[in-house]
Amino acid sequence: MSELALAVFAAETGGHVVEEPRERRFERFRRQFDEAAYRASLDARRLRFVGRREHGYPRLLRELHDPPAGLFVRGTATVELLARPAVAIVGARACSSYGGQVARLVGRELAAAGLVVISGLARGVDGEAHRGALEANGVTVAVLGCGIDRDYPAAHAQLAARISERGLVVSEYAPGVEPAPWRFPARNRVIAGLAAATVVVEARERSGALITADFALEAGREVFAVPGEITSSLSSGTNALLRVGATPLTSAADVLEALGVEAAPPRAEGVGETADRVLRALSTEPAGANDLVATTGLDAATVATALAELELAGAVVEADGLYRGVRPQA
Amino acid sequence: MSELALAVFAAETGGHVVEEPRERRFERFRRQFDEAAYRASLDARRLRFVGRREHGYPRLLRELHDPPAGLFVRGTATVELLARPAVAIVGARACSSYGGQVARLVGRELAAAGLVVISGLARGVDGEAHRGALEANGVTVAVLGCGIDRDYPAAHAQLAARISERGLVVSEYAPGVEPAPWRFPARNRVIAGLAAATVVVEARERSGALITADFALEAGREVFAVPGEITSSLSSGTNALLRVGATPLTSAADVLEALGVEAAPPRAEGVGETADRVLRALSTEPAGANDLVATTGLDAATVATALAELELAGAVVEADGLYRGVRPQA
Repeated sequence: MSELALAVFAAETGGHVVEEPRERRFERFRRQFDEAAYRASLDARRLRFVGRREHGYPRLLRELHDPPAGLFVRGTATVELLARPAVAIVGARACSSYGGQVARLVGRELAAAGLVVISGLARGVDGEAHRGALEANGVTVAVLGCGIDRDYPAAHAQLAARISERGLVVSEYAPGVEPAPWRFPARNRVIAGLAAATVVVEARERSGALITADFALEAGREVFAVPGEITSSLSSGTNALLRVGATPLTSAADVLEALGVEAAPPRAEGVGETADRVLRALSTEPAGANDLVATTGLDAATVATALAELELAGAVVEADGLYRGVRPQA
Repeated sequence: MSELALAVFAAETGGHVVEEPRERRFERFRRQFDEAAYRASLDARRLRFVGRREHGYPRLLRELHDPPAGLFVRGTATVELLARPAVAIVGARACSSYGGQVARLVGRELAAAGLVVISGLARGVDGEAHRGALEANGVTVAVLGCGIDRDYPAAHAQLAARISERGLVVSEYAPGVEPAPWRFPARNRVIAGLAAATVVVEARERSGALITADFALEAGREVFAVPGEITSSLSSGTNALLRVGATPLTSAADVLEALGVEAAPPRAEGVGETADRVLRALSTEPAGANDLVATTGLDAATVATALAELELAGAVVEADGLYRGVRPQA
């Protein structure tokens, strides 16, 4: 049985199908379905499909009790990227500035440490997590709750394009499937399923991000919750997760420690000796230009030149006035 | 051996003594110490002393591995009050408005449920916890890190006077002992020792409130930490407590549940039938006057009259526009 036929049948009938349906309608569909032609049409749109039994389908996702029949994929990276250690960062769409700031910071730090950052391309926490990962020149994967050809929300079309330059946009749903509320919980199981751990940044009670956390727990994955003020309803869901045993996240290092990931030292090839010295000074933590002058003993102009060289080489990224070394991707 | 002699000897020699010292100086002191005269001088100043082997010395405090030789006591209540179920609320002196607000709220709710609120009379979280308890017409106990006759900090002299009207001010230290930094950690063990559970509202890393939490854990008591933003250094200590296993406190009900305390319904004797009806409407949670009009079906003027009657009877207290029923003290 072709999983692609199953995925396209699900799309055409407007349902959610992970196992071969025992209905004559599917049997008829399967007989007339021209897989080669469909794959060619995907190709023409620079889309791909990786079925559940195909090489490249992520092992962690297969471990779910109801793994998607396959994933549609958009982006230049190989699907092997989905096998790399990944962390999901999820949370409220209407997050507070605190939630947005933490999502971006954690996304940046985890991506800088070489982890793949998974989220749902939604407004608020999701978008900030993706942006943080991109700021660190890291890899991030967006999981859609609609057809792979859609950018939802439309306001994040450009973000999706940037994600697919280095990372991937994936969806269980074939081109043409409209976003629908009931698809988002299903999408959340894919987010949790692709990740070794899920971080909930900010969430109201009974919100979508808590559904993602439930899927993660059900799949035996670690769940982190970011503590927030008990007087903020946007933290009521995350604080409730802490009460039932989620691990409090106080910095990205907590996740690295739990996953046993050691951040590789930043590295750059083909840069000069001075630039290399500045890069080594960035090996443990981000620093401002003035700090680098102090720690390297170089003068400000030399540090500035070295930083420019390193940024051009993609070995250093700057955000909020702090420079950080880009870790080699695992 | 008189524990009072020990306590007064400690005061006069400027040390911290919990066991009889094997020095001739103490032997000489003990021989000339006139306990009856000293107790009379305490009486004259409306102070008392309860020794470690005396009836009234709190059982939980005796369970410490180094319980104070005795407690000096100021206030009108009997020392049996110290045997009632109590919760310590502690935290940063320079707390944020969030920390102050939560300390006051939790102090109010726990006292309203009939628990004794213990704290250290310090600025910030301590003071707000005491104030919250007083707002609920509850009982609160201040533990000093200086002689029982001092009001430290001086700015809290009036607060200490209000506390001693219904509750107690206590200290391990005899009259005349000056506040000294090294006495505060010792004081913190008394705070933790008197309480069945300790709530840390807001604390920096390596701060006094974390010492109190350590004492509580060492004594096998429950420790609650109030979650706060991971970007706030005032929550770094509390969030770190969560990471090592403290229970997140999201409302005072969490403490009641952990201690197996059920808040008694508010009760008033000698009030009219209408007032009683309004009081019953306040049995589960605080409410504003408008809410009470809606839930009781009485008109606004009648509700206002009933509330005034209940406030006069001490059966209802108002804070922030919300009325709450006063629980009978356990």
